[in-house]
Amino acid sequence: MKTNPGRFFEDYSLGEVIRHAVPRTVGAGERALYHALYPARGAVSSSDEFARSVGLAASPLDDLVAFHTVFGKTVPDISLNAVANLGYAEGRWLRPVWPGDTLRSESEVIGLKETSSGTTGVVWVRTRGLNQRGEAVLDYVRWVLVRKRWREVEVPVHVPELAPVVAPEALVVPEGLDFGRHDFGLSGEPHRWGDYAVGEVIDHVDAVTVEEAEHMLATRLWQNTAKVHFDVTQREDGKRLIYGGHVISLARSLSFNGLANAHFIAGLNAGAHVNPCFAGDTVRAWSEVLDRAETAAPSVGALRLRLVATRGAAGELRGADGKYLPEVLLDLDYWALLPR
Amino acid sequence: MKTNPGRFFEDYSLGEVIRHAVPRTVGAGERALYHALYPARGAVSSSDEFARSVGLAASPLDDLVAFHTVFGKTVPDISLNAVANLGYAEGRWLRPVWPGDTLRSESEVIGLKETSSGTTGVVWVRTRGLNQRGEAVLDYVRWVLVRKRWREVEVPVHVPELAPVVAPEALVVPEGLDFGRHDFGLSGEPHRWGDYAVGEVIDHVDAVTVEEAEHMLATRLWQNTAKVHFDVTQREDGKRLIYGGHVISLARSLSFNGLANAHFIAGLNAGAHVNPCFAGDTVRAWSEVLDRAETAAPSVGALRLRLVATRGAAGELRGADGKYLPEVLLDLDYWALLPR
Amino acid sequence: MKTNPGRFFEDYSLGEVIRHAVPRTVGAGERALYHALYPARGAVSSSDEFARSVGLAASPLDDLVAFHTVFGKTVPDISLNAVANLGYAEGRWLRPVWPGDTLRSESEVIGLKETSSGTTGVVWVRTRGLNQRGEAVLDYVRWVLVRKRWREVEVPVHVPELAPVVAPEALVVPEGLDFGRHDFGLSGEPHRWGDYAVGEVIDHVDAVTVEEAEHMLATRLWQNTAKVHFDVTQREDGKRLIYGGHVISLARSLSFNGLANAHFIAGLNAGAHVNPCFAGDTVRAWSEVLDRAETAAPSVGALRLRLVATRGAAGELRGADGKYLPEVLLDLDYWALLPR
Repeated sequence: MKTNPGRFFEDYSLGEVIRHAVPRTVGAGERALYHALYPARGAVSSSDEFARSVGLAASPLDDLVAFHTVFGKTVPDISLNAVANLGYAEGRWLRPVWPGDTLRSESEVIGLKETSSGTTGVVWVRTRGLNQRGEAVLDYVRWVLVRKRWREVEVPVHVPELAPVVAPEALVVPEGLDFGRHDFGLSGEPHRWGDYAVGEVIDHVDAVTVEEAEHMLATRLWQNTAKVHFDVTQREDGKRLIYGGHVISLARSLSFNGLANAHFIAGLNAGAHVNPCFAGDTVRAWSEVLDRAETAAPSVGALRLRLVATRGAAGELRGADGKYLPEVLLDLDYWALLPR
Repeated sequence: MKTNPGRFFEDYSLGEVIRHAVPRTVGAGERALYHALYPARGAVSSSDEFARSVGLAASPLDDLVAFHTVFGKTVPDISLNAVANLGYAEGRWLRPVWPGDTLRSESEVIGLKETSSGTTGVVWVRTRGLNQRGEAVLDYVRWVLVRKRWREVEVPVHVPELAPVVAPEALVVPEGLDFGRHDFGLSGEPHRWGDYAVGEVIDHVDAVTVEEAEHMLATRLWQNTAKVHFDVTQREDGKRLIYGGHVISLARSLSFNGLANAHFIAGLNAGAHVNPCFAGDTVRAWSEVLDRAETAAPSVGALRLRLVATRGAAGELRGADGKYLPEVLLDLDYWALLPR
Repeated sequence: MKTNPGRFFEDYSLGEVIRHAVPRTVGAGERALYHALYPARGAVSSSDEFARSVGLAASPLDDLVAFHTVFGKTVPDISLNAVANLGYAEGRWLRPVWPGDTLRSESEVIGLKETSSGTTGVVWVRTRGLNQRGEAVLDYVRWVLVRKRWREVEVPVHVPELAPVVAPEALVVPEGLDFGRHDFGLSGEPHRWGDYAVGEVIDHVDAVTVEEAEHMLATRLWQNTAKVHFDVTQREDGKRLIYGGHVISLARSLSFNGLANAHFIAGLNAGAHVNPCFAGDTVRAWSEVLDRAETAAPSVGALRLRLVATRGAAGELRGADGKYLPEVLLDLDYWALLPR
């Protein structure tokens, strides 16, 4: 067999490091496409001039371009036979990605646990994105439910201990970043870090009705090859399942309206793709401020935010039974960096 | 409230200058996307080599990339609560936009007039696009019908005097432009400025059936956030209204076939988005030569052109009643620069 | 008439060289769009770093970007009134296309033959793509069935002799290419040239359901103006015919899975667009190894491959009657370069 059948649960071993294929140079083209695919408007990732005014050398690529590119490379090795993407934890953005950088990924298997059904198992990996100088740009844990090849094989159990939240002290502020001369007129909103209160809920107001062509363009751009996103014959209902990361980028971009100055994503605490998203869905977003923290840089504050993508109303997440509402698509918990 | 509710009629005051948010660096990615989204084929904006052959340093971005980028920035402040985009006047392209340039916009309120209904008002703004050196690249007037917040408030009336046509002497020829060695073989057509006669009508022959994904990609690329373009829940008929500028770019690109050498847009005299455009419409274009003028550059002539986008036949614009035909989408009056 | 009506059969004369219009600079934007439009993952055209590791200065644009760009320019002169694209032969990629290069095309008429119906004729052209230094980057023969203007005119017959296969000695290995330190881990697959056996059939497994927006974005990007791709009023069934080259790129990109190390296309031996492709079709691909050859570079081997795009099953090409099956879209015969 010349083609990649993907790995099954038995094919992973604890501590193994998988070097993922196809390094990718990203640049001006990916930036333009990101702006065409998502309603992204953050001033730092839109403008070289603005980025320079806050101490950077140029406008870095959107933090989610780094995430999707690094994630996409892991798909052939991690999630080609995955039944579900179960969660994210301990994600940290370690260094901006600049136009012209070349990214590759590697993943260490840090946990394995068979499910009670005996036909699947959970695999935990810590994935690192590296640039052309071998510097880590991103680091995160995700775990997926993967099919077993045979029922009988036993695999040693190891469930990793994962921090429920990235400690604010561990967040990395991009080198040189100084919000001291941040232009709140040009960035689009006057709100500083101190203007956000824990518990505050922000309805981001705007919405996007999703098209097949758009999510496929995006998903291919990240070289994510999971068949369900592209091939209508993969599911009985003939629908293409939209890549969860597409929903993350949609929601994050929509959150500009109310969080225009949350320029950077610094940490990914947790995330759940609660319900599948399909073309034709009209996606809106709302955020809840979960926590606030100072950072090592005096001009930079961190907000811990819950970002929810939904087909329903802002502020609604779970029903009376404590379960996610069927309209909810994404529940993401992340740290953003804002001017203090 | 952290989000932008948009301005209402009462929120504008005469003489006020609004600095619009989110400067944007444009470059190779935007150029490629422009060519993917529209059937643009002008040699100057397709080829660095061709641009050099007519005296420029490199291929500038399409003049409409400048227009859309500058226009898009104004939407959150000018047209978020607009009922209609009523017109354009006195538009001038003042300087090419080069890959790597960063654009921002500012608008001066130059006119205000309540409508007889008492629920809306007309706002006139003069918008300027500026590059990273603070040089104006584009300047135009547009006026929009905006909702009032309260019925009772009275606003002083000022209707600006606007020139019906940009005077040819006021048109700016890009610095260095010299069509003396213009290669009519490579540009696609042999027609010079002198080959066009006033009154001549050109059927541009080609047509494009518009898709939802395409107009949304384009409109997002210009960071235009008007909800009606993206969200099917905004209108009772569940349709997404296509950004008028998308139709302008479609028509202008289609006009290559017959106006291949009309390389630059130098002036915008007037423009009406006559009927709404929706996905599924098959758009074609025709032009009428309205006037001819010399410019300060001996090798460069100006043509005043009516550019019509329509779902109907070329040459047909108004019915017996003098009203625009329902098939007509756009009636644009502009100055183009051609080799003499 | 200011617009281009296209040429008819009588408008071609043997030996004539047609210089096609609109040179085009390609770069980072076109590369990103290629990755968004097709599931392309070849390491050499994805990564500057990987390209350097095999002796190149940077990552060249995908060989099919060169093909489509060069081909697109010929459409207004060669195939605007074409009834069918009949075949390709003697195609050779002569030099990589680098970001920033400007391409133009010219075609020599090398064959003419009226069909028995008297209403059409076959035109053979040898098309060359040239960069800004006038160096040939690509050379191929294609022949098309073109409408006659009048029934009565007689045109001298000349049918060119075409090689059934490009001789391996004539294939050009990109200057500097050295697969000696090729990283098979990063490229995605361990298979070398020597691992492929003549007669071997590879099912590329993945599939893509095609959308209207995608094929139109692609076809416009190559400035291919044939009306049938964009305008639903062109065909009685209201369908837009997908540009055959879109299917070539889809199939070639899908073939990564099994041919990840077939980094370059060096020769095009033959090709047939067997059945039309329309939006909604789910396209898959399979390859057959037709031949193997050494090249002048010791680390580089050539594989002659049949690449089939189909809506049906892998390995199935023709029915019992010897005719192509209705599911088959493309039968392409090409030379690829791989590490030995």
